[in-house]
Amino acid sequence: MNSPHLHKGSRQPAASRGKLRLYSNRFCPYSQRVILVLDAKKIAYDVVNINLYSKPEWYYDKSPFGKVPALELENGDVLYESLIIVDYLDEKYRAHHLHSQDPLQKAKDRLLIEQFNRVVNAMYKILSSIGRVNLDEDEAVANGLASFERELANRGTHFYGGNKPGMLDLMIWPWCERSEILKLFGNANLLKKDKYKRLLEWSRRMTEEPSVKRSMMDSDTHIKYLQSYRAGRPDYDMILNSTD
Amino acid sequence: MNSPHLHKGSRQPAASRGKLRLYSNRFCPYSQRVILVLDAKKIAYDVVNINLYSKPEWYYDKSPFGKVPALELENGDVLYESLIIVDYLDEKYRAHHLHSQDPLQKAKDRLLIEQFNRVVNAMYKILSSIGRVNLDEDEAVANGLASFERELANRGTHFYGGNKPGMLDLMIWPWCERSEILKLFGNANLLKKDKYKRLLEWSRRMTEEPSVKRSMMDSDTHIKYLQSYRAGRPDYDMILNSTD
Repeated sequence: MNSPHLHKGSRQPAASRGKLRLYSNRFCPYSQRVILVLDAKKIAYDVVNINLYSKPEWYYDKSPFGKVPALELENGDVLYESLIIVDYLDEKYRAHHLHSQDPLQKAKDRLLIEQFNRVVNAMYKILSSIGRVNLDEDEAVANGLASFERELANRGTHFYGGNKPGMLDLMIWPWCERSEILKLFGNANLLKKDKYKRLLEWSRRMTEEPSVKRSMMDSDTHIKYLQSYRAGRPDYDMILNSTD
Repeated sequence: MNSPHLHKGSRQPAASRGKLRLYSNRFCPYSQRVILVLDAKKIAYDVVNINLYSKPEWYYDKSPFGKVPALELENGDVLYESLIIVDYLDEKYRAHHLHSQDPLQKAKDRLLIEQFNRVVNAMYKILSSIGRVNLDEDEAVANGLASFERELANRGTHFYGGNKPGMLDLMIWPWCERSEILKLFGNANLLKKDKYKRLLEWSRRMTEEPSVKRSMMDSDTHIKYLQSYRAGRPDYDMILNSTD
């Protein structure tokens, strides 16, 4: 998953020979959603990383709007939209199911995933504004997290999915992994530890899950990437270069 | 489904006693999606219509963001978001299934439902602009419809769902039912009959389906409603009043 990001002019890789292939980007949280699901369900796959700043010409033949993630199936069909891909994977590969098997619980979890978008959108607004005070967005993040803290209390389980991470846990994780960045750019009190005790405990447990560990990056790496992105030169191959 | 729309000050109706209750609005296409699914699956339900211009105070206790559609279940739980509600109904009530039972076909249909949003968004832009030329939006509608015309040709079936309407048919129908309005406000050539032969034939077949007929309104009614909406006084109870 740390392969170099293909860019304008890069040659199209050979067909993947009956294995799933994920077109991805190492720093894209939506791509990470699909990786988390593939890893949690122990499904074999290849990764082709795409430079989103300079996309290979042939990539539009794979993903109609040039977006990642896009999942190429064994038969050549390509699915996109992270939530549609993960639902497909959960229905097609029945082992290690991630959605609740109860239609009502599944619907409630899907609503919470939608609701988490409010946190995500506010987070992006905070991260994209430099040196500005973001009271509305801070509040949206704080209210959103507070409702997820309450939800975890109501469920009384280690994870939203029970005793192991389920679909809801995995779908919100990529932004939780990046939450430390907010301390740099948002209100210093935003992520006050005593307000989100359960959520912090949940977060610690998530980092200990082998399938979550696989794609995890530390806060320093996320911050370094964000700085390169803000400078207009997103350093997608940062990890690859640093391990050279 | 033509009951008067409750507004600010309206009393909250008594509990629905073990029957599904849909909070709806007679002219809301997203609410119609849920009605189409309930009717296609022959599920019993009550309707409580909500005036979206002047919402009853108690409505926010039902639907957290005050939106319709919202489905109140027998146990008092409330689901919202049209696509999440219909997926729930299709999983919970197994008879007359609407989604394909093949995970890949289901994922492809869900992508097409997402893609249809581009048509819907362009349509709203055309309808909300008075006396302006909307070349980009006209093109978005035309391209979108052309791709749905091709899709129907590729499938070679009467409906997207095969020999009867499936989830994709029902999810795009509310805007197709309203498409005649575009002729009034958009480019006169936009819906040229010879470009969308299959789609027009599909549309005719849809209007003959008993479960589609139940919620259907004619173009004159849609246009009259749109005019009242544009004048700032949406006449939600139009049908009710006209049949008095």
